[in-house]
Amino acid sequence: VAATASTPEPPYVAVIFTSVRSDDLEGYADVEAELDRLAVDQPGFLGVETAGGALGITVSYWASDDDARAWKGVAEHRAAQVLGRERWYRSYQVRVATVTRAYGVP
Amino acid sequence: VAATASTPEPPYVAVIFTSVRSDDLEGYADVEAELDRLAVDQPGFLGVETAGGALGITVSYWASDDDARAWKGVAEHRAAQVLGRERWYRSYQVRVATVTRAYGVP
Repeated sequence: VAATASTPEPPYVAVIFTSVRSDDLEGYADVEAELDRLAVDQPGFLGVETAGGALGITVSYWASDDDARAWKGVAEHRAAQVLGRERWYRSYQVRVATVTRAYGVP
Repeated sequence: VAATASTPEPPYVAVIFTSVRSDDLEGYADVEAELDRLAVDQPGFLGVETAGGALGITVSYWASDDDARAWKGVAEHRAAQVLGRERWYRSYQVRVATVTRAYGVP
């Protein structure tokens, strides 16, 4: 069931990853599912939200900037980044941001 | 054609809007298209990225926090917020964040 992430009171860190996917998505779904499992166990992981289509957006939330950087360096994640650059993504952007306020209806 | 937003060097502001859509999306597409047209002309608007599905994510980018707040208060946008809360969204979260670094392949 789709759900927005449950995050604590700000401040915390959001990593906004947007990508335009290529026509070659071989292996993509499996690697994405594996990374989702791994991310949950990372220090400082707070949640993740993903929406797909021609443009894909994934926002992951972290307790600190150091936690977000550490996830970037995890071996399985680095391997996926290489596959993403070489195969899956026509273009992509990563933006690291500090959430300063938040509101909504859970 | 899907594309990631072209944004300047950080810092700038990202408004991350995530929503779980209801079964009643009457009027949604028309209002969204109209708001997209309006947002482009707002002071400080830098770009927007949207990905849809059961979970929807829209990230809009602004030169300053004041610019993001001003967009929240625009009459047409306020009317859409009411429709969203009452009709289109089962749940939603708005997170306002300051982008501190960014990289990618345009």
